[in-house]
Amino acid sequence: MIVSMKRYATKAEIEAVCERIRDFGYKIHAIEGEERVVIGAVGMGDVTACLESLEAMPCVEKAVRISAPYKFVSKEFRAGRTIIRLNGFEIGGDEFIMMAGPCSVESEKQIMETAIAVSRAGAKVLRGGAFKPRTSPYDFQGMEVEGLKLLRKAREATGLAIITEVMSDRDAGLVAEYADVMQVGARNMQNFALLKALGRCERPVLLKRGMSSTIKELLMSAEYIVAGGNANVILCERGIRTYETATRNTCDIVAVPVLKELTHLPVIVDPSHATGKRSLVPALCRAAVAVGADGLLVEVHPCPEKAVSDGAQSLHIEEFECMMRELKGYIRLWKESRVAEAAAV
Amino acid sequence: MIVSMKRYATKAEIEAVCERIRDFGYKIHAIEGEERVVIGAVGMGDVTACLESLEAMPCVEKAVRISAPYKFVSKEFRAGRTIIRLNGFEIGGDEFIMMAGPCSVESEKQIMETAIAVSRAGAKVLRGGAFKPRTSPYDFQGMEVEGLKLLRKAREATGLAIITEVMSDRDAGLVAEYADVMQVGARNMQNFALLKALGRCERPVLLKRGMSSTIKELLMSAEYIVAGGNANVILCERGIRTYETATRNTCDIVAVPVLKELTHLPVIVDPSHATGKRSLVPALCRAAVAVGADGLLVEVHPCPEKAVSDGAQSLHIEEFECMMRELKGYIRLWKESRVAEAAAV
Amino acid sequence: MIVSMKRYATKAEIEAVCERIRDFGYKIHAIEGEERVVIGAVGMGDVTACLESLEAMPCVEKAVRISAPYKFVSKEFRAGRTIIRLNGFEIGGDEFIMMAGPCSVESEKQIMETAIAVSRAGAKVLRGGAFKPRTSPYDFQGMEVEGLKLLRKAREATGLAIITEVMSDRDAGLVAEYADVMQVGARNMQNFALLKALGRCERPVLLKRGMSSTIKELLMSAEYIVAGGNANVILCERGIRTYETATRNTCDIVAVPVLKELTHLPVIVDPSHATGKRSLVPALCRAAVAVGADGLLVEVHPCPEKAVSDGAQSLHIEEFECMMRELKGYIRLWKESRVAEAAAV
Amino acid sequence: MIVSMKRYATKAEIEAVCERIRDFGYKIHAIEGEERVVIGAVGMGDVTACLESLEAMPCVEKAVRISAPYKFVSKEFRAGRTIIRLNGFEIGGDEFIMMAGPCSVESEKQIMETAIAVSRAGAKVLRGGAFKPRTSPYDFQGMEVEGLKLLRKAREATGLAIITEVMSDRDAGLVAEYADVMQVGARNMQNFALLKALGRCERPVLLKRGMSSTIKELLMSAEYIVAGGNANVILCERGIRTYETATRNTCDIVAVPVLKELTHLPVIVDPSHATGKRSLVPALCRAAVAVGADGLLVEVHPCPEKAVSDGAQSLHIEEFECMMRELKGYIRLWKESRVAEAAAV
Repeated sequence: MIVSMKRYATKAEIEAVCERIRDFGYKIHAIEGEERVVIGAVGMGDVTACLESLEAMPCVEKAVRISAPYKFVSKEFRAGRTIIRLNGFEIGGDEFIMMAGPCSVESEKQIMETAIAVSRAGAKVLRGGAFKPRTSPYDFQGMEVEGLKLLRKAREATGLAIITEVMSDRDAGLVAEYADVMQVGARNMQNFALLKALGRCERPVLLKRGMSSTIKELLMSAEYIVAGGNANVILCERGIRTYETATRNTCDIVAVPVLKELTHLPVIVDPSHATGKRSLVPALCRAAVAVGADGLLVEVHPCPEKAVSDGAQSLHIEEFECMMRELKGYIRLWKESRVAEAAAV
Repeated sequence: MIVSMKRYATKAEIEAVCERIRDFGYKIHAIEGEERVVIGAVGMGDVTACLESLEAMPCVEKAVRISAPYKFVSKEFRAGRTIIRLNGFEIGGDEFIMMAGPCSVESEKQIMETAIAVSRAGAKVLRGGAFKPRTSPYDFQGMEVEGLKLLRKAREATGLAIITEVMSDRDAGLVAEYADVMQVGARNMQNFALLKALGRCERPVLLKRGMSSTIKELLMSAEYIVAGGNANVILCERGIRTYETATRNTCDIVAVPVLKELTHLPVIVDPSHATGKRSLVPALCRAAVAVGADGLLVEVHPCPEKAVSDGAQSLHIEEFECMMRELKGYIRLWKESRVAEAAAV
Repeated sequence: MIVSMKRYATKAEIEAVCERIRDFGYKIHAIEGEERVVIGAVGMGDVTACLESLEAMPCVEKAVRISAPYKFVSKEFRAGRTIIRLNGFEIGGDEFIMMAGPCSVESEKQIMETAIAVSRAGAKVLRGGAFKPRTSPYDFQGMEVEGLKLLRKAREATGLAIITEVMSDRDAGLVAEYADVMQVGARNMQNFALLKALGRCERPVLLKRGMSSTIKELLMSAEYIVAGGNANVILCERGIRTYETATRNTCDIVAVPVLKELTHLPVIVDPSHATGKRSLVPALCRAAVAVGADGLLVEVHPCPEKAVSDGAQSLHIEEFECMMRELKGYIRLWKESRVAEAAAV
Repeated sequence: MIVSMKRYATKAEIEAVCERIRDFGYKIHAIEGEERVVIGAVGMGDVTACLESLEAMPCVEKAVRISAPYKFVSKEFRAGRTIIRLNGFEIGGDEFIMMAGPCSVESEKQIMETAIAVSRAGAKVLRGGAFKPRTSPYDFQGMEVEGLKLLRKAREATGLAIITEVMSDRDAGLVAEYADVMQVGARNMQNFALLKALGRCERPVLLKRGMSSTIKELLMSAEYIVAGGNANVILCERGIRTYETATRNTCDIVAVPVLKELTHLPVIVDPSHATGKRSLVPALCRAAVAVGADGLLVEVHPCPEKAVSDGAQSLHIEEFECMMRELKGYIRLWKESRVAEAAAV
């Protein structure tokens, strides 16, 4: 912790700050600069509380922490990679994982047709929303339990793992009965009651970055789940909100290598929400592979024009198949670099 | 609804779009421009579903709605003002309402001392968090039920109404037993499970704008609560997230008059979270009164340097008292303009 | 300067960093924390160059400056207020200054009519663009020298001071012949060639904050002008770009008190560009007075519907007159607090 | 142009709007909706002026243009690709172009060493700043003409083309004597005096996207140059400003395919400014190739720790060489898709 005093802080004020820091269990190193005094605090204590307390003192200019605010999710805690084992494959390992399916489960016909097609094209996980977070109370809110049952049917028919969204801590148990991976949507990234419930859940969790969350906040939300007892968290970049309106969100593609420097957790990209426009999805998928993501989460629908939600950003089945062929070369390069990386360790 | 076709759309494509629109129950008005065809759709149907369906068609350039996506909260639904009656006073009426208190309830001494002081200085509502949304799982999470009980005690002693945060639909019933106003924090503005629960609750709700939510989304979230059966919603501007780091958030002060043009609901400002810095709070309070807000929600603590949370943005009791004196002139002008406004109708 | 080393930095790396810092003329204070070493650097040297050099070293986690990057514009350089004297009045002193006029000078009739009206209503400065920065090359680019001449005529007729925009260092001399205050638009806040030219100019400069500039960058741009020899700079908050589309920009009203804490320069608000909508201008004007700005820059037009630019945000003359009456009470409170402030020093 | 009237607009108001539209030379198509009247305007007129005029009318809710505001840079104006021919190679054609070099030209030794190294590694263009836009007046402002002369020397020695920044219309002639490509920095993207000067210049222009500019505004700035007579414009995505602080800027990688849908101009990516951090540059370079950019502009320095500017984001020469080898596979895939694309036309 580094505390810089206001320019004209008095000796008494400086001493009061030092005492406060010592109260929190830290040792003091004061530096007298030309302009102001700077105090370094070393040790183990309740950093947040100490920082807040110091920032509330009028003689303090700024108090900043030096150590990272998260622990279990950091690379410093675990050097290797977290690999999440599902039925017959791994996320975060040496295989690039495609997750695909419709925004919402709409009918048996729709979900089965999609499941069979994306499985055939190489996807390992089927996505489909049964509980839908919608901006308007008047929009379709999802098929709920009926949707979950249809997803189970699709799993039985195809062997695909199922990922679906959970919106409330109240529903966590129910969704976990049907899902292989529990999805937390962007709007719920800081729904702490939900994060705590997922810490106690035995399913892996895919945590989407909030619409205006920093990378650090995403890691803190993951820390909630891991500290709660569930180590299997997958992070997902899905675009952030900016002033640009040409796309639904602005994909922060560099968040992937940034996260890879900070955490051992797998990181995937959702190009459908990041762009909001079908024609832009394939290019962003290529970029996500090239940048080193562990997988993709893509919206696919047998008839996007008739989709009840997100039709404009859903690929037709043929487009998805075509994209999967096109991605092959990129995925080959991705594998080569994973192998090289492993060899280098 | 206005649908503009891509520049080189064929007759068959245009006809397909028109048919789709008619399927949703709308009438068609096509305009052939120099560059492209534009189609107007008139009538009553499921606008969102229709727009999504159209945007998913490759021949469509853009489809935009003309009518507002909310209904009950709009000025067009109710011309006057929603006035929320609490014990002995009103929010949204002809009195400017001050809500004040600590970020978190920490102890009986702390909350009682604050309650007595802010009441004496003119506040009508006591704020205090019992359930705290914290970015880090390692930070203080609130006193929970014990905190609620202390708030009740403070109400009994001072007559102040109580506002406190509810973080999960699961806790809505519990919090409603103690609170006069249920507060929804910025991170939960789109926690739709919570909004639905609050629609069924009999307490007024103070809904904070999400960190990167638009004014329209704030109104849509309010619509969830009102459409669910609870008409008593107070909106709160508390700053949005931007690139500027000199303040904790950027207060969108103009959101107040914008909301006043669009809705009949009361609108208040939270200058503490908007600025994150005690010294900036009084100036923003003056601005909020001047701009026409219905009230303020201000953090006050008997000893901010020892606060477990938000100390840097909490006013000392003496600062609060001083500010209340300073605001008097502004509140007098505020009342004059309310009276003039009423006379004009 | 505080330099925190990467967690596993070696002794040799730490020594290399210390040597680099000493090369730039600083003294070293190293602090060995539990997790990492932190180095404090004290003295006077080329901070920016030193910081950049350190950040380029792979063993360095972060290097931050403690002192402010600006000097002449800071409160620490000059304790009082910069007061800019124009013909018969002052900006930054004990009078609240209204500047008003059309976006563009369009004709003699238009500018004369506006000048007479705003002068009568209490404005001291006439605004009007002769050189117009326009997003599109196909839009009206201003009357140029003809416009400047009409502004001079309006000054002669009314006694108003003239403020008008300068867009290129090449035009600085020309504009200075006609203008009393040289306006730098948001798009040119970091046009350094222009800032340097204005440092050599004898006219006061009104510097608008860039669309996505931080408060610190605004002060750095002012520092260019002051360091170049021209101490008479007025800062202007005119809204920043955010994701919100309900208004043209988002007014960062708190920037006013933030700037008042950091600098002695006058600060004004431009509510017309900040909102983009005529009906929102009066409320923001009241807020700007309440928050402690030194003045306002408002667009007024005799017939906004026929304005060649910015009609939607220009007030009709009657609206301006009405607003000026309404502002009186707020300006009285403003004066009282200026007096109280002066008495307190 | 589509104009939607306010909900309770009177017949007289609607007629006034129609007349205004006709005055600008458009034909009218009115649509009476359930809630409000919408008017379509068809024809050729001064769209911006007409829109502004309509938006200034109080009875108008919103007026939006349907056609794009730019012309020469649009795909509708020119179907193929703009290919810019330099000495021995092309930008925008079937070769992926690497531009590399230091942020600033610092000395003959530095620029020659870099030039030789990047040329050997496969770069075709040497970057190097002689006029430097710096936030602080106290930072190194560039070697100016001396720097330009050193760049010319480097060209003579290596055959590399030279790209360097021009900051003022006053310098355009001078810089054009030395540069093969004129670079416009992000801060000058809307320096319209400069854009006009470059429209009259015979050198190709690389136009960087402004820090908070939309894709549409970038195209409008390009339109200034092309409409002025210079068709050879290269667009450059270099990251935009957001709330995220983990990187210097947020790279909007999807801007590349968005631009490819809208314009025939070449598009490149600057990963150095987009990330601000050397370790993130290679991943973003791979993504830029994968997404379909025409080239890259990368900062390379023989000794980044001693660079006078941007050291933290500059690659060491060995890192650059290593990255060039690694990119080969991706560039092969890039070429295959260019060939496939050409065959498809």
